[in-house]
Amino acid sequence: MKDSPQERRRQYLKKRAFYDSLLTIYGRKPVLEALEDPTLAAHKLHLAESNRRDQLITRIEQLAHERRIEIAYWDRKGLSRISKNARQDQGVALDLALPHYGKAEEFLRTADKPYELLALDGITNPQNLGMIIRSACAGGIDGIILPSKGCAQIDPLVIKASVGTLFKMRLLRCDDLAPTLAEFANTGARICALSSHAKDTLGELNGGEATIFVLGNETRGVSDAAAKTCTHSLRIPMRNGVESLNVAVTAALISFRHQL
Amino acid sequence: MKDSPQERRRQYLKKRAFYDSLLTIYGRKPVLEALEDPTLAAHKLHLAESNRRDQLITRIEQLAHERRIEIAYWDRKGLSRISKNARQDQGVALDLALPHYGKAEEFLRTADKPYELLALDGITNPQNLGMIIRSACAGGIDGIILPSKGCAQIDPLVIKASVGTLFKMRLLRCDDLAPTLAEFANTGARICALSSHAKDTLGELNGGEATIFVLGNETRGVSDAAAKTCTHSLRIPMRNGVESLNVAVTAALISFRHQL
Repeated sequence: MKDSPQERRRQYLKKRAFYDSLLTIYGRKPVLEALEDPTLAAHKLHLAESNRRDQLITRIEQLAHERRIEIAYWDRKGLSRISKNARQDQGVALDLALPHYGKAEEFLRTADKPYELLALDGITNPQNLGMIIRSACAGGIDGIILPSKGCAQIDPLVIKASVGTLFKMRLLRCDDLAPTLAEFANTGARICALSSHAKDTLGELNGGEATIFVLGNETRGVSDAAAKTCTHSLRIPMRNGVESLNVAVTAALISFRHQL
Repeated sequence: MKDSPQERRRQYLKKRAFYDSLLTIYGRKPVLEALEDPTLAAHKLHLAESNRRDQLITRIEQLAHERRIEIAYWDRKGLSRISKNARQDQGVALDLALPHYGKAEEFLRTADKPYELLALDGITNPQNLGMIIRSACAGGIDGIILPSKGCAQIDPLVIKASVGTLFKMRLLRCDDLAPTLAEFANTGARICALSSHAKDTLGELNGGEATIFVLGNETRGVSDAAAKTCTHSLRIPMRNGVESLNVAVTAALISFRHQL
């Protein structure tokens, strides 16, 4: 008996949602720490055949066996296709199935109440990215839009700087930020650029509406392409003639502004 | 005609206050940037005789001549006694006269209205120290107590991470933090430890009183010695089971809590 077209479509969407939720991390320490965390659903462990079987690798394999996680062995080239970072993967990668990890367009399709998101526009420093995730998670931001173009991507430094919060935060992937922001704007969301030159302040923004805060590059600020999609421009009032804040600090002040 | 004892005492105190206000920075780039900033009063430039006369050194000497700043030449040993960091001074040090830079005891003696200070207890990461200074300055904190024991000291990394705000912030030096906090407590100031285990929240603290917020080590938190002097223990409410924030983010949330 063949499945109906509706059933096949349903199964296809389910499968796609699952693969969209996969985050591949790499590096021995990040992978070991993820395997040691029972709350993290690991999908598949990838190891280079050339790995020296030292203590760390033995422990990683042992944990995978205990947790019945599939292990795939690859030559260095095969592994680097998976980690996408041959220089830093140390012969180890792990696919995590994170229910909160997905695509920005999927979030937009299913959002059913006012949300507050951060959107990262050219955040290139991995420590800043990790700190932004940590602060946004603690402050209760609903998700972070992370474009694959122009931003640091999830790597061991980011995981370390996020202090475990990476796996709790809803990360929304997209390719280019500007078209994604435009789609959100089309649904009526407020798109707010943070800029020290803005006239209005963050505190003047009332709550209760779908809102995206766009955080620009550490030096150049919000890009022209992203700025064109913005409906608001906001600044954080600063004293003593200070001109800018660290971007992770800005993210924290946005995330915690309702609860201080 | 000899000065009266009162006059000699007055001159001695004035001289001591001046020397207490000196901050010696080092490294070619930080010194060059300080010399290029006309708002910074430089007292004396120190150079190693062994310096190769490259572009940077020539520019530094030229700026010192233009600004009529005394230049002293030293052998490497003499210079390292001044910079207190032979490995990083690159043969260049500069004494800055910062009116806002002084001793915690002097601040306590002359404080005449409610103030809010941060006190750093075992902050060892220079980037965190720089970010704390930057956020506190922008948020309007009245000063930062920086003990010489157990904390990172002002070095090129700190200056860089502070993005110029180091020279605007009132830095209050002391040797050991705990006895200094005890002296402030004796005058009635509230000493508040930030701790994720505290019952009360930062938001519950009312304003208008002299208050010191004690920020503990990035991993271990507030030390036992400092904790004993604390009159309050406060936490910042966090969501999603996050257990701690980056210390510079905590400093920012404290500094900006009245203006968001």
